[in-house]
Amino acid sequence: MSDRLPLQVRSKVWLEIDGEPLLGSGREELLRLVRECGSINAAAAGMGIGYRKAWTSIDAMEKRLGFPLVTRQRGGRGGGESALTSEAVDLLERYDRLTEGVREEVDRKFAEIF
Amino acid sequence: MSDRLPLQVRSKVWLEIDGEPLLGSGREELLRLVRECGSINAAAAGMGIGYRKAWTSIDAMEKRLGFPLVTRQRGGRGGGESALTSEAVDLLERYDRLTEGVREEVDRKFAEIF
Repeated sequence: MSDRLPLQVRSKVWLEIDGEPLLGSGREELLRLVRECGSINAAAAGMGIGYRKAWTSIDAMEKRLGFPLVTRQRGGRGGGESALTSEAVDLLERYDRLTEGVREEVDRKFAEIF
Repeated sequence: MSDRLPLQVRSKVWLEIDGEPLLGSGREELLRLVRECGSINAAAAGMGIGYRKAWTSIDAMEKRLGFPLVTRQRGGRGGGESALTSEAVDLLERYDRLTEGVREEVDRKFAEIF
């Protein structure tokens, strides 16, 4: 069928709390970049979004979870240095384990079926 | 972690053509109900949406695919009888094979990891 049609498959896995989105691939990337870059500002730049938007996403997750994900040091250019809390590292690792292989499996099935 | 937090997992698999959504779980249900009910009107009612919205969804899929999915007989109350074309039945069956077990697998991993 995909010989004739330019069909593609997409898949998505995300976490919710009380029916509200908590963590999907976008926020996973944001937290991962905070960990790798040591700064919310650099993470935001890496994703091509503004600092304010990145900060709002992190704040929304923290409010929903009830614990901090990012230690923020305000001041200095770009808002200072930031690191993930151990709870954030734990959440990120579990999310990565959850999603690992799901897309590959869906893509493999798609190639087989279509 | 989900002992402490009311975390839930969500997952979604859908098809696209040229980067535009073609078929996901909502439209799958709509096509399946047209097949089962023999009428777009009854299918729309079964999903709690209006006839116009159902018709627009089907039309969008057909435009994107370039072939008909539903044979429509206009006239009569509720727009007459409708059936799926063999191409639609084929597409639906492939989509169902593609998505079968994906949610269960994600839910199983979630229960194990969180």
